[in-house]
Amino acid sequence: MTNQENPVQRLIEEFKKLPGIGPKSAQRLVFHLIRRPNEDCEKLAEALSRLKGSLTLCSVCNNITEVDPCRFCSNPNRDSKMICVVEEPCNILSIEKTGVYNGYYHVLHGVISPIQGIGPDDLKLKNLLDRLKGNQVEEVIVATNPTSEGEATALYLSKLIKPLNIKLSRIASGIPVGADLEYIDAVTLARSLTGRQPL
Amino acid sequence: MTNQENPVQRLIEEFKKLPGIGPKSAQRLVFHLIRRPNEDCEKLAEALSRLKGSLTLCSVCNNITEVDPCRFCSNPNRDSKMICVVEEPCNILSIEKTGVYNGYYHVLHGVISPIQGIGPDDLKLKNLLDRLKGNQVEEVIVATNPTSEGEATALYLSKLIKPLNIKLSRIASGIPVGADLEYIDAVTLARSLTGRQPL
Repeated sequence: MTNQENPVQRLIEEFKKLPGIGPKSAQRLVFHLIRRPNEDCEKLAEALSRLKGSLTLCSVCNNITEVDPCRFCSNPNRDSKMICVVEEPCNILSIEKTGVYNGYYHVLHGVISPIQGIGPDDLKLKNLLDRLKGNQVEEVIVATNPTSEGEATALYLSKLIKPLNIKLSRIASGIPVGADLEYIDAVTLARSLTGRQPL
Repeated sequence: MTNQENPVQRLIEEFKKLPGIGPKSAQRLVFHLIRRPNEDCEKLAEALSRLKGSLTLCSVCNNITEVDPCRFCSNPNRDSKMICVVEEPCNILSIEKTGVYNGYYHVLHGVISPIQGIGPDDLKLKNLLDRLKGNQVEEVIVATNPTSEGEATALYLSKLIKPLNIKLSRIASGIPVGADLEYIDAVTLARSLTGRQPL
């Protein structure tokens, strides 16, 4: 029997393809599932099968969704004056967890990265501009990552949006809550100084 | 839409149930799968569905297998004079990877653990003794983990097997290859001294 025909080995191979899961973790996961009731395995398999079938991109904000427009864009209780621009759909979940933002979102599906050959045309910018021309939006929060690519994208967005006379802001970058000045890198500390807030 | 109906959230919940996968890893895995072609997701789902359906325990060695007897027990090219006793089926894979053992296996499916209420009767010992009475086996290697439970199980096995006049051995415990004496714990170092080998 080859490895490919063995269901245990086959599942190990499939798990190994996932990010952050090496051969040992994959083996551990499979033998965990073998020990668990059948149901657990089936639920996971079903959730996986259902993942792709019904998913599409929201025509308004490009978020991943089952129904178009997505649950954020179709929610009339959110603040229509604000749009938060993020790199990837998963970033929306992170921001939602904070509980401090109640506006709408826009997903770029990437960042400007000359090294990877990703330019502004590869980002989902067109429908963002269409949304901004609707005159309802008063502020755009750029929540791309504070990496060089994220900063470059933020700069590009500012050039694009400023002529429209819309308030533009960038999420604050600085020392994370609970961290110690002694162990923080100089670039982050410098940014927390230049971005200091009135007390 | 509740979280349970959302396929993304649902798959995150299922991944979170696996050992070593927290909320953030689960989210990362799901968004990775969303970006990958449909095929990847389906292959993983299929491997999961197939995992349990066809698996059973080998009637000879208690290994997890699709066909009974398992691929080890049905292989006539292995050394029938040796049986290696392990705690769990996954231990067989680890030993096979070393490439230095070519005998048969026996899986106990647990170790003696009074704290967890697991006694000798809960282990798959009966068919081990049946195999040993066949007169073919000359050596039993006890490869339970060098934990207190594994050691207790090894001791119990020695009492059980010694009267049968079969050579009994225990895998060596000591300093792992590449480690530094300076950082090794005292119990392991003591064991590597008492278990020293002639040069």
